[in-house]
Amino acid sequence: MSNNHLLNETHNPDLTSWVETANQTGCDFPIQNLPFAVFKRIGSDEDFRGGVAIGDQIVDLSAAKNSGVFSGVALTALEACSQRELNAFMGMGKAVWSALRLALSQALSSGSSAQQKLESCLVPQADAEFALPCNIGDYTDFYTSIHHATSVGKKFRPDNPLLPNYKWVPIGYHGRSSSIEVSGKDFKRPKGQTKAPTATEPSFGPCKRLDYELEIGIFIGNGNELGEPITIENAEDHVFGICLFNDWSARDIQGWEYQPLGPFLSKSFASTISPWIVTTEALAPYKAHWTRDEADPQPMPYLESSQNRASGSFDINLQVLLETDAMRLNNLAPTPLSQSNFKDSYWTVAQMVAHHTVNGCNLRSGDMFGSGTQSGPNPEEAGSMLELSNAGAEPISLPNGEKRTFLEDGDNVIMTGWCEKPGAARIGFGLVEAKILPAD
Amino acid sequence: MSNNHLLNETHNPDLTSWVETANQTGCDFPIQNLPFAVFKRIGSDEDFRGGVAIGDQIVDLSAAKNSGVFSGVALTALEACSQRELNAFMGMGKAVWSALRLALSQALSSGSSAQQKLESCLVPQADAEFALPCNIGDYTDFYTSIHHATSVGKKFRPDNPLLPNYKWVPIGYHGRSSSIEVSGKDFKRPKGQTKAPTATEPSFGPCKRLDYELEIGIFIGNGNELGEPITIENAEDHVFGICLFNDWSARDIQGWEYQPLGPFLSKSFASTISPWIVTTEALAPYKAHWTRDEADPQPMPYLESSQNRASGSFDINLQVLLETDAMRLNNLAPTPLSQSNFKDSYWTVAQMVAHHTVNGCNLRSGDMFGSGTQSGPNPEEAGSMLELSNAGAEPISLPNGEKRTFLEDGDNVIMTGWCEKPGAARIGFGLVEAKILPAD
Repeated sequence: MSNNHLLNETHNPDLTSWVETANQTGCDFPIQNLPFAVFKRIGSDEDFRGGVAIGDQIVDLSAAKNSGVFSGVALTALEACSQRELNAFMGMGKAVWSALRLALSQALSSGSSAQQKLESCLVPQADAEFALPCNIGDYTDFYTSIHHATSVGKKFRPDNPLLPNYKWVPIGYHGRSSSIEVSGKDFKRPKGQTKAPTATEPSFGPCKRLDYELEIGIFIGNGNELGEPITIENAEDHVFGICLFNDWSARDIQGWEYQPLGPFLSKSFASTISPWIVTTEALAPYKAHWTRDEADPQPMPYLESSQNRASGSFDINLQVLLETDAMRLNNLAPTPLSQSNFKDSYWTVAQMVAHHTVNGCNLRSGDMFGSGTQSGPNPEEAGSMLELSNAGAEPISLPNGEKRTFLEDGDNVIMTGWCEKPGAARIGFGLVEAKILPAD
Repeated sequence: MSNNHLLNETHNPDLTSWVETANQTGCDFPIQNLPFAVFKRIGSDEDFRGGVAIGDQIVDLSAAKNSGVFSGVALTALEACSQRELNAFMGMGKAVWSALRLALSQALSSGSSAQQKLESCLVPQADAEFALPCNIGDYTDFYTSIHHATSVGKKFRPDNPLLPNYKWVPIGYHGRSSSIEVSGKDFKRPKGQTKAPTATEPSFGPCKRLDYELEIGIFIGNGNELGEPITIENAEDHVFGICLFNDWSARDIQGWEYQPLGPFLSKSFASTISPWIVTTEALAPYKAHWTRDEADPQPMPYLESSQNRASGSFDINLQVLLETDAMRLNNLAPTPLSQSNFKDSYWTVAQMVAHHTVNGCNLRSGDMFGSGTQSGPNPEEAGSMLELSNAGAEPISLPNGEKRTFLEDGDNVIMTGWCEKPGAARIGFGLVEAKILPAD
């Protein structure tokens, strides 16, 4: 039985850093956060390497390795973090992640004797470009929001929106790894086959119902051997951390292609993650009680644990904003489209891990799960335009007078996420964004 | 416009090798084949590296690199082939693959002056263990046999077995890469949720309807950039080669989980490939005319080319054999279950590549496609037990008196493949096999 991540001195809300911007109210990256990314200076010929965010700076972990500040397990961890991909570090497991977090927290704390040596290891975030944080061997997309599943299902089956398996099975499917990019990589509107309901034959052309999906990405740390399932009690120990994730969808392509084997080209043209992975340990203060409505089927034993009941949920606020060409032209701020919270998910991260491996499937360090579109219980909490526009029937009015049913060329979709509650430090995820370029 | 692989001196059926076993009638690996694998001596602490089959031997490509026999592009290729994974070599493209094939063909030909130097580079296949030939970044499974799609569809929709998209869309879905293993890696029967049609609730336990799927695996050589589709004219140039592929399926788990997003845990417990990749160039004599019934919808322009019509199909015989515990105990030979041919596929390899990338999806060197279960037009050509046993309703009688509806513990499923026709050298794929171990 694991205790997962308990609160420790790194979570102390009173901690401050000698990096002054980390102490500003509303900063996503206070000293209690310390998320990981892979970066280099923009346009430089430097190698990409690991970094940890603090305020508006990045601790260059390769430089930190050579700073003389760190030793022991933390130094071993920094060696792994100096690579171009964080897979090796992520595979080292919870004790190593935790040792590095503690060492960084102490070295970055106000009054630390390491300040002078570490100051030269800082790179302003404004000067950095990011890469994927790791090699994502396999990407699996789940479907954990019952509110999303219900509102999407209603469009096909008004009287029986949820399929019979939904409340028993954490539904998921294999996704495409190669087309996952880091925030800021714009992409072309995909082309493909679609068929209008009234048409007798399909046609080919640019997607007309391009949508975002508000998700989180869950990164596996240490994996498991083929044939050796991860129990739900141990599941969270295998989770390195969480990022923001926009799983773009071509709804019209999907509608025509997805029977009987699921979404394919409607998804594989682009998926975008935020550069920063917020660690499971950083999220410990935001673990939340998980419940299952008594009228619903209760989880099968392999999906049930007292720990999962007590703290299986994550209280993470998620928001989507849209910035159109017209807004950019007129210097208008992006407009919020919706907001939801990952704690409303029907299935927890631990349940996803346990379910994914119960058949013996092996997870590898750096594998990513998508949570599925996180729509909340209220209509304004919908995590996609499909839901917000009622499948295109009810255009969304934007504050500048524009309307949208689905995304148009030039639209930049921005997602943010953060955790806050009394008695804990607010921590944020930064953002994920990408813009739709016209089809060729 | 590409010419793909034309016949050249390496295909000459009269060629023989100084490796005498390569010249025996019925040998899978004559000098006209030269397939690639990754191997080391069994139980040794050698590094895995690339090898090419010739007769009952393997040319150790790392040793060949140092033999002094090769130079120029072939030597550069051998350097890439000396690595633990062939991705770098596969990414070098057709001209390089072809240069190495020609150099190997000449050096292994009867009378070659390289014989003496290369003899010390041979390792008997009987002494070798194999690894995956490359890092499979993404695995996509197609569904290209209309006979399979129809017979499976009939079980659900007797009057309308094929879905409306089948004849327009080369249906495919994302698969799991991590659980792909090389031939000989036995695996445990998966556990999971299933629901009997008459049950009110699902139950959990070992799969009761475990099946094989007779497929080929298609390996991508050089890939494409995100947003840059591969045209059907260029598609085959991106294909390095083909292997045998058993895409094991848990039918009862699939039946309960697969709506609405497709198969997931019913597939991700194990997939098994043959060690040897037969190159597209070796298969050039077996390219075949591709037709589409005039009553059927003709392919959309992005899936249509004169070249694809002229030679888009591959004439590859495929066979499944079963070896049960009782057969092993009584020294009985494995019994054939069925035989089919990849030329009966409704969609070609080139169409799969063009379709997969038409939305901008990027392929990477080493990515693999499954062809989908290759069932032929006749019932005895079915590529799965689901079809052969009519979904379990009609048990298959084995020659030793045993019966099967689905696979039992101890069953070893063996698949073979070969090409033969007058005027060309027969070439084979070796075999892929794996045995079902009991669930924990």
